[in-house]
Amino acid sequence: MRLRKKKWITEAIKEYTDIVVLPDDDLNGYKGKWQQIFENNKPIYVEVGTGKGLFITDSAQQTPDINYIGIEKEDTVLYYAVQKVVNQKLANVRLINGDVQLLEEIFAVGEIARIYINFCDPWPKVRHAKRRLTHKNFLVKYQQILKPGGQIHFKTDNEALFEFSLNEFAEFGLRLKNITFDLHHSQYVGNIMTEYERKFSEQGMRIYRCEASFN
Amino acid sequence: MRLRKKKWITEAIKEYTDIVVLPDDDLNGYKGKWQQIFENNKPIYVEVGTGKGLFITDSAQQTPDINYIGIEKEDTVLYYAVQKVVNQKLANVRLINGDVQLLEEIFAVGEIARIYINFCDPWPKVRHAKRRLTHKNFLVKYQQILKPGGQIHFKTDNEALFEFSLNEFAEFGLRLKNITFDLHHSQYVGNIMTEYERKFSEQGMRIYRCEASFN
Repeated sequence: MRLRKKKWITEAIKEYTDIVVLPDDDLNGYKGKWQQIFENNKPIYVEVGTGKGLFITDSAQQTPDINYIGIEKEDTVLYYAVQKVVNQKLANVRLINGDVQLLEEIFAVGEIARIYINFCDPWPKVRHAKRRLTHKNFLVKYQQILKPGGQIHFKTDNEALFEFSLNEFAEFGLRLKNITFDLHHSQYVGNIMTEYERKFSEQGMRIYRCEASFN
Repeated sequence: MRLRKKKWITEAIKEYTDIVVLPDDDLNGYKGKWQQIFENNKPIYVEVGTGKGLFITDSAQQTPDINYIGIEKEDTVLYYAVQKVVNQKLANVRLINGDVQLLEEIFAVGEIARIYINFCDPWPKVRHAKRRLTHKNFLVKYQQILKPGGQIHFKTDNEALFEFSLNEFAEFGLRLKNITFDLHHSQYVGNIMTEYERKFSEQGMRIYRCEASFN
């Protein structure tokens, strides 16, 4: 999914400062102020690792009563998400070109209602477990920025990552729900696909999914 | 796993009334009296669906500080479990020839510390879901007879049953732990196999396992 670094994109993305937060921007202008930025009180859902933005833009179109914020560290992919937001004239999406490690710098305590983690890097080596976005160190961050009762919605095609994540969620005391080992052959309705999901599920790859909520 | 009904077994098993509770026995002689029957205060673990008893007898041998009770409705298989208990002179095992539906007739509130569910019938048809031993109707029964903090230890080779069971456990508010999708290639140590597990895991079949506790 990684594209070659394209210098022109780093320049071109700067044209969309009404939609994108750039790495050099002062996050104090955003933290705790997202409802003002969206100019409404609708709930805010965050996607960590937004990629080219198919999931977040389709979601935003289908549920205009929700505000969406996508975080993505690679501007070379995020640029295509920006283009989708512009072309579809989506007023309920903002994008952040930054690292997920910065979540607590980007959002105030309890500012968010839901977090989507879609097909994150599985980091299969045990010594890299801390980099997985479902590792307990990340759950601490999510808990911080989520409202009480806030949810994580998680999808992956990697079985080992799914097993790991269920254990991390359960051990952290999260309440699990709608666990499925084969999303596209399950009862679940209303699934919105990512680019990656569309490509690989067509090839018959299985998708695992669950929801986990902080009580 | 079902054997043909053998009339002689129904007679032969009656020779072992110090080990087996038979269908015609008055359960009032047992309910709430299990610690007296074992003549000690060691914790009581129950296996629902004991089959030929390999799991329960190996467990009893390895952990003499635990009392084990196995429940099995088919006397034609339970007879072989009885033989193992006799041959190995296990003082910490009792067997019940009866239906799991009777749990609350067999045990008093909070009398049990742990329940093992090993390779129960998956009942794959949706209309039979209530017969699955991890269905919420059974969880109500388990909660009744388990002490606070009591655990369910669950193993199956059936992926669909495992998925169903994780959802039932989570929805019931149980705390999940040690979820594994491939027990025999996991970090878990100290696994004790059933007859069924020994046979099918040798053929490369995957075993799913988890623990669920009532807080």
